[in-house]
Amino acid sequence: MIIGKIVGNVVCTQKDPTLVGRKMLVVQPVDLKTLEASGSSFVALDGVGAGDTELVMVVGGSSARMADGMSQTPTDRSIIGIIDSIEILGETVFRKDQ
Amino acid sequence: MIIGKIVGNVVCTQKDPTLVGRKMLVVQPVDLKTLEASGSSFVALDGVGAGDTELVMVVGGSSARMADGMSQTPTDRSIIGIIDSIEILGETVFRKDQ
Amino acid sequence: MIIGKIVGNVVCTQKDPTLVGRKMLVVQPVDLKTLEASGSSFVALDGVGAGDTELVMVVGGSSARMADGMSQTPTDRSIIGIIDSIEILGETVFRKDQ
Amino acid sequence: MIIGKIVGNVVCTQKDPTLVGRKMLVVQPVDLKTLEASGSSFVALDGVGAGDTELVMVVGGSSARMADGMSQTPTDRSIIGIIDSIEILGETVFRKDQ
Amino acid sequence: MIIGKIVGNVVCTQKDPTLVGRKMLVVQPVDLKTLEASGSSFVALDGVGAGDTELVMVVGGSSARMADGMSQTPTDRSIIGIIDSIEILGETVFRKDQ
Repeated sequence: MIIGKIVGNVVCTQKDPTLVGRKMLVVQPVDLKTLEASGSSFVALDGVGAGDTELVMVVGGSSARMADGMSQTPTDRSIIGIIDSIEILGETVFRKDQ
Repeated sequence: MIIGKIVGNVVCTQKDPTLVGRKMLVVQPVDLKTLEASGSSFVALDGVGAGDTELVMVVGGSSARMADGMSQTPTDRSIIGIIDSIEILGETVFRKDQ
Repeated sequence: MIIGKIVGNVVCTQKDPTLVGRKMLVVQPVDLKTLEASGSSFVALDGVGAGDTELVMVVGGSSARMADGMSQTPTDRSIIGIIDSIEILGETVFRKDQ
Repeated sequence: MIIGKIVGNVVCTQKDPTLVGRKMLVVQPVDLKTLEASGSSFVALDGVGAGDTELVMVVGGSSARMADGMSQTPTDRSIIGIIDSIEILGETVFRKDQ
Repeated sequence: MIIGKIVGNVVCTQKDPTLVGRKMLVVQPVDLKTLEASGSSFVALDGVGAGDTELVMVVGGSSARMADGMSQTPTDRSIIGIIDSIEILGETVFRKDQ
């Protein structure tokens, strides 16, 4: 899984029927040590009620369909967690609400 | 999922039987913030009736077969939405028909 | 899917039993606009009777097993079409037999 | 599979229900010859009781769900072994507890 | 599929139960034209009895589990053939035992 920051959203009227009612969020992946942007943004489906600027965990590939309620959805990236904290080499590099 | 622009199409007479009658479109991925071309073009099957120069959402991997009507099709990239708008950091960076 | 040119083949005597009798072709991916070599060559199984120097469409990942007759085969790249023509931005950049 | 070093962990309260009780470890991939950091860190689920700074084997994609007890979990990276030793070209480049 | 050279092996005592008794080989991918090392080494499960320094064909992703006897194994890279010869543009660039 990778960690990214929610930076936006995408709206489609004409879309696959299974996507109706789904939040399609734009995620900017971040480096896990520095939390700086790293790599290209992508669109992910939200499975946990994530909001703007939150740091989230994203699962890719066929496992994106294992996220709660997405088994019949054409998703290759799903948000499966909102990050509370990240610890690297014994140091807390991120803690929510700080 | 990634966002790309439809820039062309591919025609094959000799092909897998499940591809008969399928539109095979050439998609140029774009950067989600600048909408400039980013990365290599690829061929995707169209599941939503997308047309030339439209901005679309593309799903990859096994989930490409979850697009409507493609479960028995050898596709690793399917178009599952036509983009109406993209909002990044509170700004609308794309709106269709503008 | 990506487009590539068939540039060779690979022979194995000792191999997975499901590969017996399968043509294993070397494919050089090409840029879809310039048709020049782009990226590393790989081995693909042939599902459509493709021949040397032909331009072909290749599907990857689990969908490679959706190619006709390959559902039980350990393939992650299968050739599913022989390209007749490619049109980019209204121009024909490739037409077979020219 | 790739080899990496466990360098940290991630905590989420709000997450996919199947992730409750799962250790989510941060893995830094390493070059198999030099054992130096190589490529971006990611989050993996632990299936073998791995601990901080240990060298582990990580499986990706849908096969991450084949790890013991993870068939219903949205994971695209799972730890499936703790490395005892690595031999390259007849030389032992890593041995645990040395 | 990609072609690589077997350059070593990995030993784990603590591992997923399905890996017990499996040979875990280190493979260095090679360029198909020059046969020089190209890209990062990885660990693959052996399905064909491959040995040190042999050139092998490796399948990735979920199809790695289609290799003979691996359907329940958490593998994302399996060796499915030992290369006898490679022909590129009409020239034999590799022949075993030469």
